[in-house]
Amino acid sequence: MNSNCPFCNTENQQLAFASTKGLKAVYNKSPILPGHSLVIPVKHVTSLFDLNEEEISNFFSFARKVTAFLCEVYKSEAYDWSLQEGIEAGQSIVHLHLHIIPRKPDDLGENGEWYGKLQQSVDPQNKQRITISETEYRDISMNLGKLWI
Amino acid sequence: MNSNCPFCNTENQQLAFASTKGLKAVYNKSPILPGHSLVIPVKHVTSLFDLNEEEISNFFSFARKVTAFLCEVYKSEAYDWSLQEGIEAGQSIVHLHLHIIPRKPDDLGENGEWYGKLQQSVDPQNKQRITISETEYRDISMNLGKLWI
Repeated sequence: MNSNCPFCNTENQQLAFASTKGLKAVYNKSPILPGHSLVIPVKHVTSLFDLNEEEISNFFSFARKVTAFLCEVYKSEAYDWSLQEGIEAGQSIVHLHLHIIPRKPDDLGENGEWYGKLQQSVDPQNKQRITISETEYRDISMNLGKLWI
Repeated sequence: MNSNCPFCNTENQQLAFASTKGLKAVYNKSPILPGHSLVIPVKHVTSLFDLNEEEISNFFSFARKVTAFLCEVYKSEAYDWSLQEGIEAGQSIVHLHLHIIPRKPDDLGENGEWYGKLQQSVDPQNKQRITISETEYRDISMNLGKLWI
Protein backbone atom coordinates (compact mmCIF):
# COMPACT_ATOMS: atom_id res chain seq x y z
CA MET A 1 0.00 0.00 0.00
CA ASN A 2 1.43 3.32 -1.10
CA SER A 3 -0.67 6.31 -0.07
CA ASN A 4 0.43 8.33 -3.10
CA CYS A 5 -0.38 5.62 -5.63
CA PRO A 6 -3.68 5.92 -7.54
CA PHE A 7 -3.83 2.15 -7.98
CA CYS A 8 -3.50 1.61 -4.20
CA ASN A 9 -6.33 4.09 -3.57
CA THR A 10 -9.04 2.15 -1.75
CA GLU A 11 -11.91 3.80 -3.58
CA ASN A 12 -10.37 3.03 -6.95
CA GLN A 13 -9.86 -0.58 -5.94
CA GLN A 14 -13.50 -0.77 -4.84
CA LEU A 15 -14.49 0.16 -8.38
CA ALA A 16 -12.70 -2.87 -9.80
CA PHE A 17 -15.07 -4.75 -12.10
CA ALA A 18 -13.38 -8.10 -11.47
CA SER A 19 -11.21 -9.59 -8.73
CA THR A 20 -9.36 -12.76 -7.90
CA LYS A 21 -6.71 -13.67 -5.35
CA GLY A 22 -4.62 -10.52 -4.90
CA LEU A 23 -5.57 -9.06 -8.31
CA LYS A 24 -8.10 -6.63 -9.68
CA ALA A 25 -9.30 -5.48 -13.09
CA VAL A 26 -10.17 -1.79 -13.31
CA TYR A 27 -11.50 0.30 -16.16
CA ASN A 28 -9.00 2.89 -17.39
CA LYS A 29 -9.91 6.39 -16.23
CA SER A 30 -8.66 7.78 -19.50
CA PRO A 31 -9.25 5.01 -22.05
CA ILE A 32 -7.85 5.25 -25.56
CA LEU A 33 -10.67 3.01 -26.83
CA PRO A 34 -13.87 1.69 -25.27
CA GLY A 35 -13.12 -1.23 -22.96
CA HIS A 36 -9.50 -0.22 -22.27
CA SER A 37 -8.85 -1.74 -18.86
CA LEU A 38 -5.97 -2.60 -16.55
CA VAL A 39 -5.05 -5.64 -14.50
CA ILE A 40 -3.26 -4.68 -11.28
CA PRO A 41 -2.03 -6.50 -8.17
CA VAL A 42 -3.83 -5.33 -5.02
CA LYS A 43 -0.52 -4.94 -3.20
CA HIS A 44 1.83 -2.17 -4.27
CA VAL A 45 4.44 -3.78 -6.48
CA THR A 46 6.26 -1.86 -9.17
CA SER A 47 7.64 -4.70 -11.23
CA LEU A 48 6.82 -8.11 -12.66
CA PHE A 49 10.03 -9.17 -10.95
CA ASP A 50 8.41 -8.50 -7.56
CA LEU A 51 6.00 -11.41 -8.12
CA ASN A 52 6.79 -15.02 -7.31
CA GLU A 53 6.13 -17.81 -9.82
CA GLU A 54 2.63 -18.53 -8.50
CA GLU A 55 1.72 -14.84 -8.62
CA ILE A 56 3.00 -14.54 -12.20
CA SER A 57 0.88 -17.50 -13.18
CA ASN A 58 -2.21 -16.05 -11.46
CA PHE A 59 -1.63 -12.61 -12.98
CA PHE A 60 -1.65 -13.78 -16.60
CA SER A 61 -4.32 -16.43 -16.12
CA PHE A 62 -6.59 -13.73 -14.67
CA ALA A 63 -5.59 -11.26 -17.41
CA ARG A 64 -6.66 -13.78 -20.02
CA LYS A 65 -10.07 -14.23 -18.37
CA VAL A 66 -10.51 -10.46 -18.20
CA THR A 67 -9.55 -10.21 -21.88
CA ALA A 68 -12.14 -12.81 -22.91
CA PHE A 69 -14.74 -10.95 -20.87
CA LEU A 70 -13.91 -7.54 -22.35
CA CYS A 71 -13.84 -8.87 -25.91
CA GLU A 72 -17.30 -10.35 -25.37
CA VAL A 73 -18.77 -7.22 -23.80
CA TYR A 74 -17.17 -4.88 -26.36
CA LYS A 75 -17.83 -7.27 -29.27
CA SER A 76 -14.17 -7.47 -30.29
CA GLU A 77 -12.31 -10.33 -31.88
CA ALA A 78 -8.89 -8.80 -31.31
CA TYR A 79 -6.99 -7.21 -28.46
CA ASP A 80 -3.70 -5.62 -27.52
CA TRP A 81 -1.78 -6.19 -24.34
CA SER A 82 0.88 -3.73 -23.28
CA LEU A 83 3.09 -3.76 -20.23
CA GLN A 84 5.63 -1.02 -19.65
CA GLU A 85 8.17 -1.26 -16.92
CA GLY A 86 10.43 1.65 -16.09
CA ILE A 87 10.14 5.33 -16.96
CA GLU A 88 12.18 4.82 -20.14
CA ALA A 89 9.52 2.34 -21.28
CA GLY A 90 6.67 4.77 -20.74
CA GLN A 91 5.43 3.52 -17.37
CA SER A 92 3.48 6.46 -15.98
CA ILE A 93 2.07 5.02 -12.75
CA VAL A 94 4.71 3.07 -10.87
CA HIS A 95 2.46 0.21 -9.79
CA LEU A 96 2.57 -2.87 -11.99
CA HIS A 97 -0.28 -2.85 -14.52
CA LEU A 98 -1.13 -4.59 -17.78
CA HIS A 99 -3.14 -2.66 -20.38
CA ILE A 100 -5.86 -4.68 -22.11
CA ILE A 101 -7.40 -3.00 -25.15
CA PRO A 102 -10.19 -4.67 -27.16
CA ARG A 103 -9.73 -3.81 -30.83
CA LYS A 104 -12.04 -3.46 -33.82
CA PRO A 105 -11.35 -2.87 -37.52
CA ASP A 106 -10.03 0.65 -38.15
CA ASP A 107 -10.80 1.74 -34.60
CA LEU A 108 -7.75 4.00 -34.49
CA GLY A 109 -7.51 4.99 -38.12
CA GLU A 110 -4.83 3.89 -40.49
CA ASN A 111 -1.76 4.13 -38.33
CA GLY A 112 -3.18 2.40 -35.26
CA GLU A 113 -1.09 4.52 -32.95
CA TRP A 114 -2.54 3.44 -29.65
CA TYR A 115 0.86 3.28 -28.03
CA GLY A 116 1.40 6.97 -28.63
CA LYS A 117 -1.93 7.57 -26.98
CA LEU A 118 -0.94 5.45 -24.00
CA GLN A 119 2.06 7.69 -23.54
CA GLN A 120 0.06 10.88 -23.54
CA SER A 121 -0.94 12.70 -20.43
CA VAL A 122 -4.21 11.60 -18.88
CA ASP A 123 -5.27 15.23 -18.88
CA PRO A 124 -9.07 15.09 -19.50
CA GLN A 125 -8.72 17.88 -22.06
CA ASN A 126 -6.53 15.61 -24.14
CA LYS A 127 -8.68 14.78 -27.14
CA GLN A 128 -6.41 11.92 -28.09
CA ARG A 129 -7.97 9.86 -25.34
CA ILE A 130 -11.62 9.37 -24.49
CA THR A 131 -12.78 11.83 -21.86
CA ILE A 132 -15.02 10.24 -19.27
CA SER A 133 -16.31 11.96 -16.17
CA GLU A 134 -16.00 10.50 -12.68
CA THR A 135 -19.72 9.61 -12.87
CA GLU A 136 -19.31 7.82 -16.19
CA TYR A 137 -16.26 6.03 -14.81
CA ARG A 138 -18.26 4.77 -11.83
CA ASP A 139 -21.18 3.74 -14.04
CA ILE A 140 -18.99 1.77 -16.44
CA SER A 141 -17.10 0.10 -13.58
CA MET A 142 -20.27 -0.88 -11.75
CA ASN A 143 -22.03 -2.14 -14.87
CA LEU A 144 -19.03 -4.20 -15.92
CA GLY A 145 -18.84 -5.53 -12.36
CA LYS A 146 -22.43 -6.74 -12.62
CA LEU A 147 -21.68 -8.55 -15.87
CA TRP A 148 -18.49 -10.22 -14.62
CA ILE A 149 -18.96 -13.79 -13.40
CA MET B 1 3.52 -26.93 -37.54
CA ASN B 2 2.37 -24.72 -40.37
CA SER B 3 4.61 -24.87 -43.41
CA ASN B 4 3.78 -21.28 -44.38
CA CYS B 5 4.52 -19.84 -40.96
CA PRO B 6 7.93 -18.16 -40.47
CA PHE B 7 7.86 -18.96 -36.75
CA CYS B 8 7.32 -22.67 -37.51
CA ASN B 9 10.26 -22.65 -39.90
CA THR B 10 12.76 -25.16 -38.53
CA GLU B 11 15.81 -23.08 -39.37
CA ASN B 12 14.38 -20.06 -37.60
CA GLN B 13 13.59 -22.14 -34.56
CA GLN B 14 17.14 -23.49 -34.58
CA LEU B 15 18.37 -19.91 -34.26
CA ALA B 16 16.45 -19.42 -31.01
CA PHE B 17 18.81 -18.02 -28.38
CA ALA B 18 16.86 -19.59 -25.50
CA SER B 19 14.49 -22.51 -25.08
CA THR B 20 12.40 -24.20 -22.44
CA LYS B 21 9.57 -26.76 -22.54
CA GLY B 22 7.68 -26.00 -25.74
CA LEU B 23 8.87 -22.39 -25.97
CA LYS B 24 11.61 -20.45 -27.71
CA ALA B 25 13.03 -16.95 -27.62
CA VAL B 26 14.16 -15.61 -30.99
CA TYR B 27 15.75 -12.33 -31.99
CA ASN B 28 13.49 -10.17 -34.14
CA LYS B 29 14.57 -10.20 -37.79
CA SER B 30 13.55 -6.56 -38.09
CA PRO B 31 14.07 -5.09 -34.63
CA ILE B 32 12.85 -1.61 -33.78
CA LEU B 33 15.56 -1.31 -31.11
CA PRO B 34 18.62 -3.43 -30.21
CA GLY B 35 17.57 -6.48 -28.24
CA HIS B 36 14.00 -6.59 -29.61
CA SER B 37 13.10 -10.27 -29.31
CA LEU B 38 10.07 -12.55 -29.37
CA VAL B 39 8.86 -15.39 -27.21
CA ILE B 40 6.99 -18.01 -29.23
CA PRO B 41 5.51 -21.45 -28.61
CA VAL B 42 7.23 -24.16 -30.65
CA LYS B 43 3.88 -25.55 -31.78
CA HIS B 44 1.75 -23.49 -34.15
CA VAL B 45 -0.85 -21.75 -32.01
CA THR B 46 -2.41 -18.48 -33.03
CA SER B 47 -3.89 -17.36 -29.74
CA LEU B 48 -3.23 -17.15 -26.01
CA PHE B 49 -6.57 -18.91 -25.72
CA ASP B 50 -5.07 -21.99 -27.38
CA LEU B 51 -2.82 -22.55 -24.34
CA ASN B 52 -3.87 -24.43 -21.23
CA GLU B 53 -3.28 -23.01 -17.74
CA GLU B 54 0.09 -24.71 -17.33
CA GLU B 55 1.25 -23.47 -20.74
CA ILE B 56 0.14 -19.91 -19.92
CA SER B 57 2.11 -20.08 -16.72
CA ASN B 58 5.21 -21.43 -18.48
CA PHE B 59 4.93 -18.85 -21.28
CA PHE B 60 5.04 -15.81 -19.00
CA SER B 61 7.49 -17.30 -16.54
CA PHE B 62 9.88 -17.94 -19.45
CA ALA B 63 9.17 -14.49 -20.93
CA ARG B 64 10.19 -12.91 -17.64
CA LYS B 65 13.48 -14.84 -17.60
CA VAL B 66 14.15 -13.80 -21.20
CA THR B 67 13.39 -10.18 -20.29
CA ALA B 68 15.84 -10.22 -17.38
CA PHE B 69 18.47 -11.71 -19.68
CA LEU B 70 17.92 -9.17 -22.46
CA CYS B 71 17.92 -6.23 -20.03
CA GLU B 72 21.25 -7.44 -18.66
CA VAL B 73 22.85 -8.00 -22.06
CA TYR B 74 21.53 -4.72 -23.51
CA LYS B 75 22.15 -2.79 -20.26
CA SER B 76 18.55 -1.65 -19.93
CA GLU B 77 16.59 -0.95 -16.79
CA ALA B 78 13.25 -0.78 -18.58
CA TYR B 79 11.33 -2.82 -21.10
CA ASP B 80 8.11 -3.00 -23.06
CA TRP B 81 6.00 -6.07 -23.64
CA SER B 82 3.46 -6.10 -26.43
CA LEU B 83 1.13 -8.86 -27.50
CA GLN B 84 -1.25 -8.36 -30.41
CA GLU B 85 -3.93 -10.85 -31.17
CA GLY B 86 -6.05 -10.54 -34.29
CA ILE B 87 -5.48 -8.55 -37.46
CA GLU B 88 -7.40 -5.59 -36.04
CA ALA B 89 -4.87 -5.48 -33.21
CA GLY B 90 -1.89 -5.40 -35.55
CA GLN B 91 -0.87 -9.05 -35.41
CA SER B 92 1.18 -9.56 -38.57
CA ILE B 93 2.36 -13.16 -38.17
CA VAL B 94 -0.47 -15.39 -37.06
CA HIS B 95 1.54 -17.48 -34.62
CA LEU B 96 1.33 -16.39 -31.00
CA HIS B 97 4.29 -14.16 -30.05
CA LEU B 98 5.18 -11.71 -27.32
CA HIS B 99 7.43 -8.76 -28.20
CA ILE B 100 10.08 -7.94 -25.60
CA ILE B 101 11.86 -4.64 -26.14
CA PRO B 102 14.62 -3.45 -23.77
CA ARG B 103 14.37 0.33 -23.42
CA LYS B 104 16.84 3.11 -22.66
CA PRO B 105 16.36 6.83 -22.05
CA ASP B 106 15.30 8.66 -25.24
CA ASP B 107 15.96 5.61 -27.39
CA LEU B 108 13.06 6.44 -29.70
CA GLY B 109 13.05 10.19 -29.45
CA GLU B 110 10.40 12.25 -27.77
CA ASN B 111 7.28 10.47 -28.87
CA GLY B 112 8.41 6.93 -28.16
CA GLU B 113 6.36 5.53 -31.01
CA TRP B 114 7.58 1.96 -30.98
CA TYR B 115 4.10 0.60 -31.54
CA GLY B 116 3.84 2.38 -34.86
CA LYS B 117 7.15 0.82 -35.81
CA LEU B 118 5.90 -2.62 -34.82
CA GLN B 119 3.04 -2.15 -37.25
CA GLN B 120 5.25 -1.26 -40.15
CA SER B 121 6.25 -3.67 -42.83
CA VAL B 122 9.38 -5.67 -42.14
CA ASP B 123 10.67 -4.51 -45.51
CA PRO B 124 14.48 -4.24 -44.98
CA GLN B 125 14.44 -0.88 -46.76
CA ASN B 126 12.18 0.47 -44.05
CA LYS B 127 14.35 2.95 -42.18
CA GLN B 128 11.92 3.01 -39.29
CA ARG B 129 13.24 -0.34 -38.17
CA ILE B 130 16.82 -1.51 -37.83
CA THR B 131 18.00 -3.28 -40.93
CA ILE B 132 20.05 -6.38 -40.18
CA SER B 133 21.31 -8.82 -42.74
CA GLU B 134 20.76 -12.56 -42.53
CA THR B 135 24.40 -12.92 -41.45
CA GLU B 136 24.02 -10.35 -38.70
CA TYR B 137 20.81 -12.04 -37.61
CA ARG B 138 22.58 -15.38 -37.29
CA ASP B 139 25.54 -13.82 -35.47
CA ILE B 140 23.34 -12.05 -32.94
CA SER B 141 21.20 -15.16 -32.37
CA MET B 142 24.21 -17.41 -31.88
CA ASN B 143 26.02 -15.00 -29.61
CA LEU B 144 22.94 -14.48 -27.45
CA GLY B 145 22.50 -18.24 -27.36
CA LYS B 146 26.02 -18.63 -25.99
CA LEU B 147 25.30 -16.10 -23.25
CA TRP B 148 21.97 -17.59 -22.21
CA ILE B 149 22.12 -19.95 -19.23
